Amino acid sequence: MNPLALDDAQNCVLQHTMPLGTETIDLLQAPGRVLAQEVRANRDQPPCDVSAMDGYAVRAADLGAVSPQLTVVADIRAGDLPTLTVQAGQCARIMTGAPIPQGADTVIRVEDTQAVSADTVQINVAAEAGRDIRRRGESLRNGEAVLAAGSEITPGVLGILAMVKCAEVTVQRLPRVAILSSGDELEGLRDAFDVHKIPDANSYALLGQVQALGIQPTLLGIARDDPAALREKLEQGLRYDVLLVSGGTSVGVHDFVRPTLEQLGVQMHFWRVQMRPGHPVAFGTSAGCKVFCLPGNPVSSMVCFEQLAAPALRNMMGHARLFRRTLPVRLAQAVAHRPGNVEFVRVVLSRDALGYMAIPTGSQSSGVLLSMARADALLVVPSASQGLAAGEQAMVQLLDGTGFQEINDI
Amino acid sequence: MNPLALDDAQNCVLQHTMPLGTETIDLLQAPGRVLAQEVRANRDQPPCDVSAMDGYAVRAADLGAVSPQLTVVADIRAGDLPTLTVQAGQCARIMTGAPIPQGADTVIRVEDTQAVSADTVQINVAAEAGRDIRRRGESLRNGEAVLAAGSEITPGVLGILAMVKCAEVTVQRLPRVAILSSGDELEGLRDAFDVHKIPDANSYALLGQVQALGIQPTLLGIARDDPAALREKLEQGLRYDVLLVSGGTSVGVHDFVRPTLEQLGVQMHFWRVQMRPGHPVAFGTSAGCKVFCLPGNPVSSMVCFEQLAAPALRNMMGHARLFRRTLPVRLAQAVAHRPGNVEFVRVVLSRDALGYMAIPTGSQSSGVLLSMARADALLVVPSASQGLAAGEQAMVQLLDGTGFQEINDI
Repeated sequence: MNPLALDDAQNCVLQHTMPLGTETIDLLQAPGRVLAQEVRANRDQPPCDVSAMDGYAVRAADLGAVSPQLTVVADIRAGDLPTLTVQAGQCARIMTGAPIPQGADTVIRVEDTQAVSADTVQINVAAEAGRDIRRRGESLRNGEAVLAAGSEITPGVLGILAMVKCAEVTVQRLPRVAILSSGDELEGLRDAFDVHKIPDANSYALLGQVQALGIQPTLLGIARDDPAALREKLEQGLRYDVLLVSGGTSVGVHDFVRPTLEQLGVQMHFWRVQMRPGHPVAFGTSAGCKVFCLPGNPVSSMVCFEQLAAPALRNMMGHARLFRRTLPVRLAQAVAHRPGNVEFVRVVLSRDALGYMAIPTGSQSSGVLLSMARADALLVVPSASQGLAAGEQAMVQLLDGTGFQEINDI
Repeated sequence: MNPLALDDAQNCVLQHTMPLGTETIDLLQAPGRVLAQEVRANRDQPPCDVSAMDGYAVRAADLGAVSPQLTVVADIRAGDLPTLTVQAGQCARIMTGAPIPQGADTVIRVEDTQAVSADTVQINVAAEAGRDIRRRGESLRNGEAVLAAGSEITPGVLGILAMVKCAEVTVQRLPRVAILSSGDELEGLRDAFDVHKIPDANSYALLGQVQALGIQPTLLGIARDDPAALREKLEQGLRYDVLLVSGGTSVGVHDFVRPTLEQLGVQMHFWRVQMRPGHPVAFGTSAGCKVFCLPGNPVSSMVCFEQLAAPALRNMMGHARLFRRTLPVRLAQAVAHRPGNVEFVRVVLSRDALGYMAIPTGSQSSGVLLSMARADALLVVPSASQGLAAGEQAMVQLLDGTGFQEINDI
């Protein structure tokens, strides 16, 4: 089978993934999850006309004169239920959020008034009727649909859920994810130091990537190049919703991963994709599990995860937004490219008056994980490109750690 | 005291906050934290020259002839320690990551070869010496500083930490954050439904905002407008590193929060800022605690958190990047503005060939939390602006939930 174009591989992965069902959880656990229910308002909010400011509730008809003086007949706080009626020449001291008393139709801010005596206030501005009143139902109207199923529970959405008193909320279940590294050359994090071995970085980089999506994965450790041991680890991994295996996917005779997965009932959908780094990346499915076989090189593994596994996981989580946010940037230097593969170049971003500029992070060898650790973004070089010139416009995908910046743009 | 300009308020907050000290934690708990130590490589990585591809390790001198046929004298896997020397006319089958045997100086990819017999392979390409070999120390050089103190532990950084076998890592401590809502008008999430009350949305929106920074805050509940009860809650809150109080900060006579904080030894640094929404926002410090008094309106509370509390918390966490990532956008419609305050308009983003476009999310009343729940970003209207025209370029701050997008840009 020829290598698949990256967009075909992405489509394949998305066609084979879907949300896993729902669960009901405490609101406090809900941030970052995806709503599986429509949410409707269960009351008008605010429940009546309320003051938008601290000040005085007045009758607009009394404001015709220059600097009228009004008698303060009440003092209304948020949470009060005033029963009096404000008559001509009267007003009520009122707090932000407090109910507007009968008779009053306008709020004058405290800074536009002057106390004349304990119960008399002078109004120093003119104001049209209705000013600084928040109308009943302005925020939420009883029965109105306020949140659609599929909404991501951002902080603002969490506030709305609290406003309609959803103490429990029905959300899409999170996929259970297992991570396995394979290869005799690998040394585990707590194994004795062996200068001839290669420390297993992939398990941890993948753990960070999965955690950043809001999922706590399980590390299955290292599968050695022994058919029985490998089979056992893969069987264990196939009990999860998603299994990420790094290493052991290329064409060498010692690569047992793919045949062992097939023996275990996994149908492989592709095993080469037109992308760099990451050419040897495979995807398969069994009855209950989606399996991604990622390259052994740590940068390749991370880039393949971003392009293929992350959209699949976001899809399983119920998100509508599956792909990393992209930005148009200018290139600080030329980027060579031979047509054939989509290439992902690790870049740092800088800013000037014209916008964002992308600067490659040095060696782009897929073995050099530092290039990824230092990157803000992945520059996307289209497969047909003959190379990009310095100053040319291109697209980058923002990586983790770019939600904040050093520059204060206020 | 006159309202402070927003940048002055931000500078004040940052001057009064600093990292809280360090702790050593398990690597698995480290994603998102900030390194408090410099990290050096403790070995060369790769530990020797290794193959970058699956193929054959050959002597470049043997490649002069057209389609030379070489005798395969060994089979070298990643993790092996080959002792043989490849002689003239010989080669070794080699896997990605496997050590280059003595005598060989070049790797020919398996796809550029053809098996002639069980132990003979024909090489179908010419290649310069050194091709497809990853040199010892290419990724990491023993003793070299690879991560600086202050680095955010992104997935790539986590991979590097695993590569140098940091099973435990020293990071900046997270601030302990308490959240308190104040006001008699508020109804708690699990209180009986009272149509005249206003559900406490702020505690939960703030919880979401703090969680999104990687901190699990404590909810202290609702402080009623009773001096003794309020004092008790505030005393409780002042035992945390950061206390966020929403409501009760304006100038009305029933607002006890500020005087009570002052009685408890909190020095207030400002209580009005030239921003909308969020004009009445206060900041104070005691010996052990930073206190933000946020407005009672949920949108105002969220916007003030983003502009003032989030940079302070990021500063305490040890981050260098304190401010929300900004993007240049075009405005889909005009935005009115009176000079005086920096204004934050809730917008959704859309994309076309020219870049990002910002569309306000409807009512910008600070009571309308839905405008925030639906927003992708905050449009920054500078304080001196006389209003922005449709099509004009402006700056937005990206909010939570914008790390991913629907568009696939491959």
